[in-house]
Amino acid sequence: MLKTLIIGFGCCACVLTIGILIGHFGISKTGSSTPSWASDVVRDVDEDFISTFLSEVDNMEIGDNLRELTKVPHMATTEGDEQTVQFMLKRWQDPETGLDDSWREEYSVYLSFPDPKNPNKVTVVNASNSVLHTLREKEVTYTPDQDDPNVVPAYAAYSPKGNAKGKLVYANYGRPTDYERLNQTVNLKGTIAITRYGGAGRAAKAINAAPYGVLGVLVYTDPYDINDGLMSDLNETYPHSWYLPPSGMERGSFNTLFGDLLTPYLAAKDHTYRIPVEDIPGLPPIPIQPIGFEDASILICALAGMAAPEDWQGSFKCNYNFGGPGFKDTSTFKDSDVELDIGNYETVKNSSNVMGVIRGSVEPDRYVIYGNHRDSWVHGAIDPSSGTSVMLEITRVLGRMVKQGKWRPRRSIIFGSWGAEEFGLIGSAEYTEQYFTKLSERTVAYINVDIAVFANATLRASGMPSIQNVVFTATKQVSAPGLESTSVYDNWIKYTNKTSPAHGVIPKIGYLTGAGSDYAAFVHYLGITSLDMSYTYDRTKTRARIYPAYHTAYDTFDYASKYIDPGFTSHQAIARTAGNVLIRLADSLLLPFNCSDYAETLEDYLKEAVVQYDEQLKAKNISMEPIKQAVASFRRAAYHMDEVIGSLDLGNESPLKVRMINDQLMLLDRAFLDPLAFPDKYAFRHVIWASSSAGKPTFPGLADAVQKSDWDKVHYHLSVLTQAIEGAAHTLTNAI
Amino acid sequence: MLKTLIIGFGCCACVLTIGILIGHFGISKTGSSTPSWASDVVRDVDEDFISTFLSEVDNMEIGDNLRELTKVPHMATTEGDEQTVQFMLKRWQDPETGLDDSWREEYSVYLSFPDPKNPNKVTVVNASNSVLHTLREKEVTYTPDQDDPNVVPAYAAYSPKGNAKGKLVYANYGRPTDYERLNQTVNLKGTIAITRYGGAGRAAKAINAAPYGVLGVLVYTDPYDINDGLMSDLNETYPHSWYLPPSGMERGSFNTLFGDLLTPYLAAKDHTYRIPVEDIPGLPPIPIQPIGFEDASILICALAGMAAPEDWQGSFKCNYNFGGPGFKDTSTFKDSDVELDIGNYETVKNSSNVMGVIRGSVEPDRYVIYGNHRDSWVHGAIDPSSGTSVMLEITRVLGRMVKQGKWRPRRSIIFGSWGAEEFGLIGSAEYTEQYFTKLSERTVAYINVDIAVFANATLRASGMPSIQNVVFTATKQVSAPGLESTSVYDNWIKYTNKTSPAHGVIPKIGYLTGAGSDYAAFVHYLGITSLDMSYTYDRTKTRARIYPAYHTAYDTFDYASKYIDPGFTSHQAIARTAGNVLIRLADSLLLPFNCSDYAETLEDYLKEAVVQYDEQLKAKNISMEPIKQAVASFRRAAYHMDEVIGSLDLGNESPLKVRMINDQLMLLDRAFLDPLAFPDKYAFRHVIWASSSAGKPTFPGLADAVQKSDWDKVHYHLSVLTQAIEGAAHTLTNAI
Repeated sequence: MLKTLIIGFGCCACVLTIGILIGHFGISKTGSSTPSWASDVVRDVDEDFISTFLSEVDNMEIGDNLRELTKVPHMATTEGDEQTVQFMLKRWQDPETGLDDSWREEYSVYLSFPDPKNPNKVTVVNASNSVLHTLREKEVTYTPDQDDPNVVPAYAAYSPKGNAKGKLVYANYGRPTDYERLNQTVNLKGTIAITRYGGAGRAAKAINAAPYGVLGVLVYTDPYDINDGLMSDLNETYPHSWYLPPSGMERGSFNTLFGDLLTPYLAAKDHTYRIPVEDIPGLPPIPIQPIGFEDASILICALAGMAAPEDWQGSFKCNYNFGGPGFKDTSTFKDSDVELDIGNYETVKNSSNVMGVIRGSVEPDRYVIYGNHRDSWVHGAIDPSSGTSVMLEITRVLGRMVKQGKWRPRRSIIFGSWGAEEFGLIGSAEYTEQYFTKLSERTVAYINVDIAVFANATLRASGMPSIQNVVFTATKQVSAPGLESTSVYDNWIKYTNKTSPAHGVIPKIGYLTGAGSDYAAFVHYLGITSLDMSYTYDRTKTRARIYPAYHTAYDTFDYASKYIDPGFTSHQAIARTAGNVLIRLADSLLLPFNCSDYAETLEDYLKEAVVQYDEQLKAKNISMEPIKQAVASFRRAAYHMDEVIGSLDLGNESPLKVRMINDQLMLLDRAFLDPLAFPDKYAFRHVIWASSSAGKPTFPGLADAVQKSDWDKVHYHLSVLTQAIEGAAHTLTNAI
Repeated sequence: MLKTLIIGFGCCACVLTIGILIGHFGISKTGSSTPSWASDVVRDVDEDFISTFLSEVDNMEIGDNLRELTKVPHMATTEGDEQTVQFMLKRWQDPETGLDDSWREEYSVYLSFPDPKNPNKVTVVNASNSVLHTLREKEVTYTPDQDDPNVVPAYAAYSPKGNAKGKLVYANYGRPTDYERLNQTVNLKGTIAITRYGGAGRAAKAINAAPYGVLGVLVYTDPYDINDGLMSDLNETYPHSWYLPPSGMERGSFNTLFGDLLTPYLAAKDHTYRIPVEDIPGLPPIPIQPIGFEDASILICALAGMAAPEDWQGSFKCNYNFGGPGFKDTSTFKDSDVELDIGNYETVKNSSNVMGVIRGSVEPDRYVIYGNHRDSWVHGAIDPSSGTSVMLEITRVLGRMVKQGKWRPRRSIIFGSWGAEEFGLIGSAEYTEQYFTKLSERTVAYINVDIAVFANATLRASGMPSIQNVVFTATKQVSAPGLESTSVYDNWIKYTNKTSPAHGVIPKIGYLTGAGSDYAAFVHYLGITSLDMSYTYDRTKTRARIYPAYHTAYDTFDYASKYIDPGFTSHQAIARTAGNVLIRLADSLLLPFNCSDYAETLEDYLKEAVVQYDEQLKAKNISMEPIKQAVASFRRAAYHMDEVIGSLDLGNESPLKVRMINDQLMLLDRAFLDPLAFPDKYAFRHVIWASSSAGKPTFPGLADAVQKSDWDKVHYHLSVLTQAIEGAAHTLTNAI
């Protein structure tokens, strides 16, 4: 009986156990069953996937892309531009390596071109109207590229057409202080000014000149500023080195604002309202024309007048004089004028963006945007095709993964190949205008890689402080080109670094305060956390203000592959770094943004403002206490956010809680927008990063207002800033 | 043995079953266990909870609230106002029926008051400077309320101080056309104009007069416009009926813009930058003063000059003449002037909003905001305390549920008791300025109940078309006051209805195109889907432009409880309806907004625009094709959204998918914002609902530009509208 009982109990225990097992594993919990989406919503970035991505990024593929993109000149809206449109579409619609979808978006935009029937001419003309010297219109041919009939002659886009004739003067960089200094010695009325690139914006060189009665302006690149002084094309310059040949001429857009000039804040569709042409602000009021430094040296070395100051001297083998105005009596140009005959015309033409997307699986309504312009001035191997080659390699690797069903990002990725950037960031600006609402609400970040490689020394990155964190993570995982055992990060920190109170010595990320590339509309108009990066110089080895072939007919595949990045390993490092950041932004469960790094920058800005302005402001009875308190609020809010994030049990949190935090991080930069803060600056709405003429590392509106001693505006901007910073702090603290 | 076996099997079966049950229910599935948040995120609105809410809303509690709120006059920033602040805080901090949290927010705002030491005076003065008649400064006392020393004398806030003396003229409603007509007959230079309320904004009556040389303006309420012609206080007017007694004077704010006038777009904190007082736009340039109709009849019936037109005649028992200018020779006022002596002064004072919140459980970062102003001109029983009494009853019922742990909304609910509305919607405007970013990003809807009950006939509701749907749902569940078997909906549709292509005959919801109450900043500045509601008149029974005691010393508890809503059952119906809408907005898993209803309104607007303008525009070579296409895009997008919503299996969808759709619905109105579309209208940014002087049921910027024959602006506004409507359509279609 005992035995029976024991067996019975044993049986029972067995049966009970079987029952428990069946009950636990065999029957799904209806009602409270695990929903199918439960594992998707907590999926995080996959480090193995990133390793795979990094290993598949191929330098030779990038070289092939570059060769293809630079076959012909592809200035905006030309036949060559259309060929690149078709090439992008073909690549992004490729069934094996393409994206989910790709299409073009067209805008009718206001451009400026030289007239082939009435070419721009610059001559030296004597008193009896004989032409003594005619300046070159195109570069000297060293490789067949320069002979392409579609190489556009050098010109200043948006220079007015017209004739200007007068005695020549030398005006250094054409800054307001330069003309002021020159005017103390020479009567500028009726003169032509020759200026060198650098120091001031392109249009500014003419805008600053006109009030003095200057009739026309020439602009050239001094070998001092671009070639480390070298000037000879026999052995010193391209095709013998990366330096600019004597006939090289920097083309460019000579407008001040960005975006289509006739349709501010409106996408430039055919039917869109256009402002009258005469109402466009910021255009050169007088003709201006770029020339090569060989011609410039002939003119400058013949100038009469007082010797220009030491810091006006360039690398020509003569003293740079102000001009009599005009030439020395000892010169063959004695008593001669310089004459500009500019035939530029403006026209509205169709420019295309090419768009491509990879749809997000979990949060398709969150976008990471990656872009670069497609248009060049001539062949544009470096500017912009180095960046486009990198973008195409990233899309090839990611596209293949998507097509093979091996990967789909959590968030959507949008790729933009912008049109007409060279004429003023037009394609990207029109895109942000057309899709303003959608992009404002949904964009996590914008990554811009325009010129991917200036040189092979080190990374250069600029962006909002909150993005620094993910750039550091990515750069630690990528080898520096040519230094397999050193990371991009470890190499970078040697070239440019700073000491952060929170992190110690770290690489220094720049700020996106200007409008130098297509990030401008994303940063300033939309307030989207952005990043711009490239590989660049060792500044101890050259003072070239940019790579020497910039915007000239020498920016070709030959130049790029021989002198900028032989083997394309710097391109590869950029593709790996930018792609790594892109994947992290698209795939991380929690967005990798750090608000405390933003707080550090605001504290730096505040410190600078207090040092620079506090005393002056006190004298005007304007208190800096409120902005100090606002920055302190932001710092507390950032600490709080760090704590909230630190205490998360990521895999087990409600997806709506994670989304709430991600929205706080995503929208942080939006809090700094004020559409009325800078009424005179088109599309500048971000009160921390707007451009400033004061040149101080502090709040731009405040700095500009103090510089102008406009104390009402100073107080106004302090209030705008205080409210914006407090508002940003509110978005980081508890939702309610 | 068989028996033993059977028992054994029985036992085993039993034990097995027990085991299965233990296994199934007793042990949670680790690894693939249902996350704790899984049931929360799919929780939907609970109809039983709504029934409970409706049954607990108590009319007598509302009456008690009203009695408490109207004990003393509580004009903004007075001691009485502070008493109501304390009362609100006490109620919202009550441990049994209060909210999660409640606090005050203060702003330093620019207000205008009469000077007690230099009371405003209006007199009739003869040629030898003898005063023949002095007009009343305060209302006649019928109940002790009017004797309260804190009853502010009648005045026009923001009227300049100063003396004005001249011959009297009658200018009807003081519209531009009225002064134009009058000026054809009478030389207005140096005159005083008497005008009646209605037809034009308060400030406009003085602004329109000044260009003609008019020196001062009086404004009164004609019995024709407010009392259906009745005038006697012996038996026809309050305290015998709801009609205005002869001495009743409508106070009011005589500014044009809303929000604090010194700090546009900035919250009015102590340290905030203030514009110079002389730069405030839209203030009366000449003194203006409200008077009672008894005094007005004495003046008007003595006027000389030609008979005014038929539609200028009011209810006085005399003919209304233009004025000689001045009085008839047969009058005792012969050759006399009317003299205004206005001592108003402006001052910056602290005004408080009282805020209260119930935190959301699942989506705390989504807000439903419910608000009303707290300040009155005198006792303000109807304006605004009827609305505040309703709000307090809603918070009492919901607060108790929260305190008892029986309920917590999915989203957060914010209650706002705004300050200084009567001076120009100041408290709510400052709130939206201070928290612009957070509110823009997170607010699902704003509900405004200011004057809750004008009369007992029917509901009146105004809002964005997308909110119509949830108002219909709610009103079908609430009994009409006094008609237990008829719903508010069924009663409403009898009074005001329209035929919708989609829904057939439905009650007609108005649009929030003006700035009549605190919804203005939410609609126009923030672009938040909003709703304003009240119980109101049977328009076939009265032509009173508003309830007769409006802004007078007669708007008391006695008046409200005897003549506006005896028994407070209309208040109760509004509390039930507004509360029902509030709960649905806060608790629904999917937001109850209907985009197709928005499409219907855009189609109506477009149709009207085409009928009114297409031919004129064609003649100016401006095409309406783009806006037609934009409205068609929006319609397609709305259909698409309806389909997406229709195909949802709500309880089983990923919470991130539902959130995506909710964000599309929540942000729909934000797509219509353009901060640059109306540069002259403070805070008007919503291109569909902005105010318009053209008075057409169509796009406001377009209508105004056509009215001014400004064809460039017409084309500009068409482009703005086209881009905004296309942008809205983009936000409703697939995320990518």
